[in-house]
Amino acid sequence: MPDDFERMWSDLAPIGRSAQSGGYFRQPFTAPENELRAWFLEQCAARSLRVESDAFGNLVGWWDVGAGPAVLTGSHLDSVLDGGAYDGPLGVVSSLAAVDVLRSRGVVPARPIGVSVFVEEEGSRFGLACLGSRLATGTTSWEAARELRDRDGVAFGDVVEGGSSSLLASVGTYVELHVEQGRNLVDRGAAVGVASEIWPHGRYRFDFGGVADHAGTTRMEDRADPMLTYAFTALGANKQARLAGQRATFGRVEVTPNGTNAVPSHVTAWLDARCATESSLSSLVDGITTQATDRASRDGTSLEVTAESVSPAVVFDPVLAARVAADHEDGDWPIIPTQAGHDAGILSAAGVPSAMLFVRNPTGVSHSPAEHAELPDCLVGVSALADTLERLAQ
Amino acid sequence: MPDDFERMWSDLAPIGRSAQSGGYFRQPFTAPENELRAWFLEQCAARSLRVESDAFGNLVGWWDVGAGPAVLTGSHLDSVLDGGAYDGPLGVVSSLAAVDVLRSRGVVPARPIGVSVFVEEEGSRFGLACLGSRLATGTTSWEAARELRDRDGVAFGDVVEGGSSSLLASVGTYVELHVEQGRNLVDRGAAVGVASEIWPHGRYRFDFGGVADHAGTTRMEDRADPMLTYAFTALGANKQARLAGQRATFGRVEVTPNGTNAVPSHVTAWLDARCATESSLSSLVDGITTQATDRASRDGTSLEVTAESVSPAVVFDPVLAARVAADHEDGDWPIIPTQAGHDAGILSAAGVPSAMLFVRNPTGVSHSPAEHAELPDCLVGVSALADTLERLAQ
Repeated sequence: MPDDFERMWSDLAPIGRSAQSGGYFRQPFTAPENELRAWFLEQCAARSLRVESDAFGNLVGWWDVGAGPAVLTGSHLDSVLDGGAYDGPLGVVSSLAAVDVLRSRGVVPARPIGVSVFVEEEGSRFGLACLGSRLATGTTSWEAARELRDRDGVAFGDVVEGGSSSLLASVGTYVELHVEQGRNLVDRGAAVGVASEIWPHGRYRFDFGGVADHAGTTRMEDRADPMLTYAFTALGANKQARLAGQRATFGRVEVTPNGTNAVPSHVTAWLDARCATESSLSSLVDGITTQATDRASRDGTSLEVTAESVSPAVVFDPVLAARVAADHEDGDWPIIPTQAGHDAGILSAAGVPSAMLFVRNPTGVSHSPAEHAELPDCLVGVSALADTLERLAQ
Repeated sequence: MPDDFERMWSDLAPIGRSAQSGGYFRQPFTAPENELRAWFLEQCAARSLRVESDAFGNLVGWWDVGAGPAVLTGSHLDSVLDGGAYDGPLGVVSSLAAVDVLRSRGVVPARPIGVSVFVEEEGSRFGLACLGSRLATGTTSWEAARELRDRDGVAFGDVVEGGSSSLLASVGTYVELHVEQGRNLVDRGAAVGVASEIWPHGRYRFDFGGVADHAGTTRMEDRADPMLTYAFTALGANKQARLAGQRATFGRVEVTPNGTNAVPSHVTAWLDARCATESSLSSLVDGITTQATDRASRDGTSLEVTAESVSPAVVFDPVLAARVAADHEDGDWPIIPTQAGHDAGILSAAGVPSAMLFVRNPTGVSHSPAEHAELPDCLVGVSALADTLERLAQ
C-alpha cells in the first residue's frame, strides 16, 4: 500500500529545512537532496514503478503499461537557497499520487506513464537553471555542463558520471504540475490552471571593478568604488522594469574583499531579467547596461556584463493546452502565462509537446519559506493531473 | 647577528599573500598570522629581548635596560582582508630595526624599551578594531570580547585563553610607527611626520529586512526588496559624506539567501563613518539613518541600525608630539591628523602618553594590495624611530 499525498508530503517536510528560517536548502547532490532521491526510489518501489536513471542524475519511474509514445509527468526535488516546500516537490508528489488515483479508478492506460525527477531545476548550485532537462534533451551539451562550478569551485563534472541520456527517447508528451508563483488563479477563483507560455528570461553577471582603498583615509572624491556603481545599477534596473511591467532583480551579490574598513576592489552582482517578448528582454538588459556603464565612467570603475543563460519565450502547444483545460465537470480550467522557467519549457522548446498544470498559491509568494498552497487545492491538483494523464494516455 | 630591515621585510613578504590579488590575508590566529608571531618570537630571541605575552595574545619583546617607566613601541601584524604589506608590519619591523640602530650607536637607554605586537588591530576577524589594545588597556572587557564571533561563528573566547593583562603595567610612553594612509606627507615633500589627532569614527551594522520572493513571477510593485533600500542608502551615505568632506563607506554586505532568482529576505551592510568631530560624526550617521528609514518605509522593508563600535576623537599629547617632531637635522617633522584608528589611539585614550610616526605613502593607497612605501623612506622611518626612542628613553 503506497503512501497517500498527505503522508508523502509530511515525510518530505523536514528534509533540508532550516530551523532558523523555516526555508529549504535542497541543492543538488547535497545530503538533503540525496535523501529526497532515496525517498523517491522507495516510492517508486512501493508502486512497482521501474526506475531508469541517466548519466546526469535525472530519474524516471516507469509504469510499464500499454504501448507507443509514453506520457511523462513529474517535476524536480531541488530548491533555491532558503526556498519553499512546494516549488518542485509538489509536482513529484502529485505525480505519484495521480498514478495511485488512476489505479484506484481502474484505469488501464493505453500508453506507458513515467514519473520524472529532473536535476538542478533551480540552478542554485551550478548556476544554470533546468540543467537536468537541458542535458536530457541535448539543449546543453555535456562538454559545456561538466565545467559549471558551484560556489566552492566543485565542477558539475565531478559530481555526476556524465555522457549522454536516452531517458526521453520514448516520451511523446510531458505534463508538469507546479505551484503557481503568482496570484493569477487567486484572482480568477480557480484551484488549478493550465500554462499558455513562459516569458523569455535570462541571468546576466555584472562585474564591477574599482580600486581597493582605506575606508577612513581616502577622500570620497579620490575613490573608484564599485559598490556605488552597483548600487546605482540595482536601483536603475528596478525602475526600468517597474515602469515597463517587466522584471529585473539583483538578488545575489559578492563583494571583494568585503571588509568593513576597505573600499571594495570588486563587486559582482547577478541580474535576473524577464519580459513578455524577446525583443523587450534584450532592450531591458541593454538599457540597464547603458545606465550602469555611464555611471561606471563617472565613478572611475569598470563594468563587464556576461549573459550566463538566456531562455527564449516558450509557447506551450495550444492544442495540447486546450485538450488539458477543456470540458471538465467544473467547466474549463483557466489558461495563464508564467514568468518562471520550468523543465516543461525546456522539453517544449526541444520538440516534446508539453503542458503545465498550476495549483493556486494564496499569496503568490514563491522562492521563499512563505511559499504555500492549501491542502484541498493540492488534492484538486492531484485529481486534475490524474484526469489529464487519463486523457493523454488514451 | 639579527636580521636587518631589508632581510626582515623580505622574509615577511610571502606570508599570507594571495597569489591571485597580491594582497594579504593575515587574520588573527589563522595560519599566516601564527607564522608571523613565530617569526616575531625568533626576532626577539635573536636580539635577546625577553618576551612577555598576555591572555589575549598580545606580545612585547623587552630590552631590559635602565629603570622607571618603560618606552613601548611597535604596531600589529594582522591585516584587513586582501590588505597591503605595510599597514602594521612596517611598525613592527621598524621597531626591531630601531633597537638595532640604538645598539649600533652605543646608546644605553635610561629606561626599558619594549617592542609590542597587538592582536586584531584591523577587526577583520572578530569585528572590533584594536581588540588587543582595547583588552590590554581595559577599554573593552573580557566579558564583552569573549562573545565576539568571526564569520564562521567561532568566538574570540574560543581562540584565546582570556582573563586579564598586565602587559602595559610598566609602560610610561607609547610610540607607533605606521605607513601613512593618505597623501599629506607627499604634498609636504616629507619622508616622515608625527600624528596630531585621530578623527572620531565608528562601525554601524544596518540590517535591512524584506520579504523573500520569486524574482520572475513577483511584480515589481508587489515586492518588499531590502536590496533596493540598501542600494539607496549606500548612494545617500556617499553623497552626504562627500559634500561635507567626511567619510562614509559600505564595504561589506551580506545578502540572504543570495540567490540569483530570489528577491532577498535580508541584506546586512556595515557602515564605516569618520568625521573631524564627534558631533559631526553623530550628525552624519543620523542623516544616513534618516534617509535609509524613509526609503525603507517606501520599500515596505524594515531597518535596524546597531553601532558596533564608536571611537571618540583622539588628540595625541601635544607636548609629546612636539618633543618627537622638533629640532632635527632636517628641521621639524610635520604634525598631521589621520582618519584611521590605531592602537596608539586606544593607549592615548586610556591615559598612556602616546605618539605616532608616519612614513610617506607615494599614492596614499592603503587597505589594498597596492599599499606601498619606498625603501629609502622606510629606512628614514627606522632612523626617525630610533631618534625618538633615544629622546624618550633618556
